Order: sequence, then structure tokens, then C-alpha cells
Amino acid sequence: MKSELIILKSAEILLKGTPVRRKFEAQLIRNIRAKLKSENISYTKINKTHSRFLIYTNETEKALNALKKVFGIVSLSPAIKIKTNLETIQSAALKFSKLTKNKSFAVRAKRVTKDFKQTSQEINETVGAYLQKQTKANVDLDNPDITINIELIGKTTYLFTKTTKGFGGLPVGTQGKIVCLMSGGMDSPVAAWMMLKRGCEIIPLHLRISKDEHQKFLKLVKQLQKFSAGHKIKPKVIAWKPKLEKLTKKLKSKNKLSWTCIFCKHQMLLEAEKLAEKQGAKAICIGSSLGQVASQTLDNIAVTHHGIEIPILTPLIGFNKDETEKLARELETYEIAAKGAGAAVCPFLPSKPRTAANLNKFKELKNQLK
Amino acid sequence: MKSELIILKSAEILLKGTPVRRKFEAQLIRNIRAKLKSENISYTKINKTHSRFLIYTNETEKALNALKKVFGIVSLSPAIKIKTNLETIQSAALKFSKLTKNKSFAVRAKRVTKDFKQTSQEINETVGAYLQKQTKANVDLDNPDITINIELIGKTTYLFTKTTKGFGGLPVGTQGKIVCLMSGGMDSPVAAWMMLKRGCEIIPLHLRISKDEHQKFLKLVKQLQKFSAGHKIKPKVIAWKPKLEKLTKKLKSKNKLSWTCIFCKHQMLLEAEKLAEKQGAKAICIGSSLGQVASQTLDNIAVTHHGIEIPILTPLIGFNKDETEKLARELETYEIAAKGAGAAVCPFLPSKPRTAANLNKFKELKNQLK
Repeated sequence: MKSELIILKSAEILLKGTPVRRKFEAQLIRNIRAKLKSENISYTKINKTHSRFLIYTNETEKALNALKKVFGIVSLSPAIKIKTNLETIQSAALKFSKLTKNKSFAVRAKRVTKDFKQTSQEINETVGAYLQKQTKANVDLDNPDITINIELIGKTTYLFTKTTKGFGGLPVGTQGKIVCLMSGGMDSPVAAWMMLKRGCEIIPLHLRISKDEHQKFLKLVKQLQKFSAGHKIKPKVIAWKPKLEKLTKKLKSKNKLSWTCIFCKHQMLLEAEKLAEKQGAKAICIGSSLGQVASQTLDNIAVTHHGIEIPILTPLIGFNKDETEKLARELETYEIAAKGAGAAVCPFLPSKPRTAANLNKFKELKNQLK
Repeated sequence: MKSELIILKSAEILLKGTPVRRKFEAQLIRNIRAKLKSENISYTKINKTHSRFLIYTNETEKALNALKKVFGIVSLSPAIKIKTNLETIQSAALKFSKLTKNKSFAVRAKRVTKDFKQTSQEINETVGAYLQKQTKANVDLDNPDITINIELIGKTTYLFTKTTKGFGGLPVGTQGKIVCLMSGGMDSPVAAWMMLKRGCEIIPLHLRISKDEHQKFLKLVKQLQKFSAGHKIKPKVIAWKPKLEKLTKKLKSKNKLSWTCIFCKHQMLLEAEKLAEKQGAKAICIGSSLGQVASQTLDNIAVTHHGIEIPILTPLIGFNKDETEKLARELETYEIAAKGAGAAVCPFLPSKPRTAANLNKFKELKNQLK
């Protein structure tokens, strides 16, 4: 007995007021359709019932793998749909679960609508006793090999034994646009992914210094696109080497090469701000994690962010390095970013980059460089 | 056989260059001493050897529980110290592990210095065979009941079977000061905690509207203090009700009450900025999570942050609600924040708060209110 549909559940969307919830749910369905189409997964229909989305498809594995990358979904369960009738439920549970003597099991019933006469606990006991009699399998409520979930909604009952976790969040396209500064490294794609997760359309901006990093950036964008179904990510690239050459020349003439990284980062943020204005994006996102490297001190952040008028969002500012890396592995950007990471030292890196920049000195120097 | 010391390991600190690493390690030791003192835990000495801190104490359980709240530490293992000698290791492993026939086990040796003649793998095999012979217990390398860790450092060997995880991060006091806007709610203490985790000294600022929320704020600060050993958190409170009364009166006269939350949040940030300047803090931290509530849209963030000159760090901007709650449970602020959360609706909340504020309209209105 094979699953005939996938039950998707969302969490945060359900907490919204009615008009916002409807808008977000419509966006979620559009994104689900776009995802299935982009991966050539056939389905017959998508329904909504009692906060559940039902995707009718026979390509279960492919669909699970694709849909878990759609934000707004917290769980995905391949299921069958049967009549709400105790005997039907019992025999379907037996066949669908493929329960045998050497497996332990638990039954977890849930009356989504309360019109069925038995309580959830009574259904658990009745179905459990039936399955035990038929298979001689043992009940294990704490750590069962197989969990048989039964959800009763009016005259229809859904039955499933497996649940894949989604990333939750909000459907991409519900929260507006954001410019994401992105190198070819580990952190910035994770930061961009977190903003996608919170429903933003992202515009990745790469300041090109080398061909290798540029290529990695493009691969990272391709991976992020998998989480942005329905919203094509259009990366932007600016040739940065000539600008950095100019900058370092000026700084060298003032004997202030130690300020290179500070000015470079500040100018990157100015470029991001310009792009945001052009594209109607309301904020910039960066991958900084406080204290992770010497350039990401509070002093340096205060200086590099100075004068940028739109918000600079910092989703990783409180992350440890291993927390970012763990997430990077999960979203499969780790391998791309890690490749040749040691070689990617910026050719303009001064011998002693400033770690505790002073804001007044920065303003003064900025004036002198004009 | 009881443990006589606790081995603490750090992770990120080890990646720093020598002068920074030394500074951070010294801060970590100061924070460890302060933590032990504040909880009246007796210890005889603290040593450092090969990237490990050794705390000699007999109050193992109390010390573990206290020290896992000190940032900069990733793991804590109660251990014994013996001579690097195969027979000594074998008999100590037997006694310390309390291994018996009905438990499975694994031996994991690590030569921190490479001067011992046998390789780690050979030690595993020799000690494993000895323990098996003595106890008849089974080896299980994948999922053992007891893992016997043996770390060989020169003539000394450390033996431990249990490891508690720390939160990692950087020692508080290494990254400067930050003003944290804090209500009595779920998110802002988690955000403040993340900045503590990254080594900041925090200055929590509460804008007082009600006695209940103020009390919750103070309890939350008390809980955060447990993670800030060596750095006394000094919360600041500003009477906010009179200011809000004035604000709403002005807005009402212009028929613009829907802007109340926008102006309130903006003025809170201005207060935080003022306090930061006074206290030498370089940034503000807030608990916003994009799209979590209607007031935290990109549009509203762009408007409320406008004109604030110091960085506003947003550690939770990419978090889902359940991710924040999970963390709140871990750091034991959940219960405090959740208490009476439903009742804590602001008395000044307008009937239709603005969710997509326009920056130009905001600037115009701000001028009119002057």
C-alpha cells in the first residue's frame, strides 16, 4: 500500500491574522507549485484542509526532497486517505504500516474535527489492540520502530507513518526584497539563506576580486535558488579589483594601508545601499559574526556601518563558527564554500589590518580621500 | 574512584593569533574564577596545558553546572590524572569507568603529545582487550554505554568517561560593550544572551510601561547574569509611560495614532543610542525576528532604524519563533518570559498599527511632531 498524497504543515503562518494568513498561504501554494514544476515532479492536485496542504503525487521521494526546501513548511508526511470508519482505519493501518512481529509500534490518533464518537485515546487503544492481535508486534509508546499517525477530519481520515522536517519560516516573497553581500565564503550564503527562510526575496551582490571566488559565488547562488522556488534569484556582480587598486593607492599615499579592509567593507556597504535603492530593497544583509575574525570587532562594525542609511541586518552576529558551519552543511553550501578556502586570501590584505578602528579618525581620513 | 579535576576545552579561541589568544584565555580564566567564587564552589587550582584548562575540584556536579554557563568553553569532562604507563592506565580505566559485564564500552585514546610508543589505535586495542577480559563487557564502537577517553600528554594521562557540552562562544569581556533593548518578553533576552555568548558585556535597557513587565525584566537580567560571571550586568530603566502618553497625545491631534508603535520603537532606539554613548558602548542589540509580528516588517524596520547612527545588531532576525523558544528553554528564560505573556498587551497599542510604514511620510510626520 503506497502513499497517494503528502500532508504539509506550516506553523508560524497559522499564528497570523486572517487576511495576512490567506495572503501567506496563497504565496506558499504558488511556491509549492513552482518547486514541483522546476523539478519536473508530477502531481494531480493541491488541496487545503484544516491548516494542512495536501499534495497528490506518486513521486513521493522526489517530492519530499524538493518540498522540504520550500520555506513555510515545518513537516511533510506521505499519507493515504481513507474513510473515517474504525474497521477501514484498522485494516489500512495494518497494510500501510507494513507492521510485522519483530517491530515495535505506537498508534497516535488525532481528531482534528471532534465529530467522531471515540476519543483519540480510545482510537489509539482500539487500533493498537487490533494491530497487536494481527501481527503479535509489541507496543512501545516511548521509542517505537513504527509510529502510526491517524488524523480524523470529518468523514475523511489520513494515515501516515513517516514525517520529514521542513525548515519552517515564511514563504519567500511575503517579506520584501533584501540585498545580500555575498563572497564565495562560508558565512554570507548562510546569512542570505536565513533571510530567504524569513520570507525575503534576496538580491546577492558580489564584489569581484578573483575569478575563483566569483565562480564559487555563482555556485552558491545556484544552491540558494533551490530554496527560492517561484522567485528567481538574480545575482549582481561589480568588478571590485580596479576600485580596490584605486583605494589602496590613495591609502598608501597617506601611509594608511592598515585601513584598507575598513574602507573596502564600507564601500561594499555603500554599493549594496545603492543597489537596494535601485531595486526597491529595504535593507542589506551581511554574514558578520561578532569577533569571529579580527575585522569583525564591534569597533570595526561601528565604523564600517557608519553613514549607511538603510538597515544592515546581521542574522549571524550571535553565531559561533561551528553553528554556521553546521547550517552550511545542512543547506549544502559547505562543500562549495570550503573548496580552496585557504587560497582565497585577498591580494590587497595589508600586513597589519586595523582591528579597533576609531570613528573620528575614519571620518577624517574619509574626508582626506575624497 | 572519583574525579579530581574537570578538563575544559575551548574551540574558537584556539583559532586566534597568539597575542589575541593569550588575552582571551586570560579573560576566560578570570571569568571561570569569578563563576566558581560566585557559586561558592571550592577548588584548589586552575592549570592550563595543551589547550586544556584543568580545574581541580571535588564538587564536580556543582562545578559542571556552573561552568557550562561560562562562554568560551565547548566541553567539560570530570577526569582523573594518572601516570602515562599502560598498566596504570588499564587499572585506572577499570576502576574509574565502573565497567561491568552488562554494559557495552569503547576506548578512545588520544596522544596529545606523540611521545608515547604505542599509537592511539594500539592503546585502544590493548586497553579494550584488558577491560574485556576483566569484566566480560562487550565492545560497541558505535553506540557504547560507556566511552573511556584517555588523553596522553607527556608523562601525564587524563582519563574521563563523561562530557558535558558548553555553549562555546567567546569569553565575556573580550568584545566590548553593547546596549540591549529588553522588554519582559521571549525574544529580547535571547538576543542579549547571544551577544554575551559572543563575548560582549551587555547593558540591558528597559523602557518601563508596567510594573509586571519591569519585574519580569529584572528576573530575566538575573538569569542572564549567570552567563556573565566576572561582569556584573547593570540594568537601566527609563519611565516610558509618561513619554508614550505625550507621544500619543501628539499623534492623536494629527489623527495619526496608527503610527504609535513606529514612533515608540524609534524613540526607544534613540534612548538606547544615548545610553550607548554615555557608557562607551559601540552598538545596540534588539530581538527583532523578521516578519514574526506585524510590527517587524522590513518596511517598519527601515523606518524605525532610520537616523540611528550606531549599528543596530539583530541576532534573531533570521530565527523562527520555535527556534527562539527552544533557545529560551535552554537558557531558562522561557518560563520567566512566558508568565502572563497574554496579559502584557501595551495599553497604547492602536487599533490598527501600521505594518508597512513609508519612510518619507515618517520623516514628514517626525518634523511635524517636533
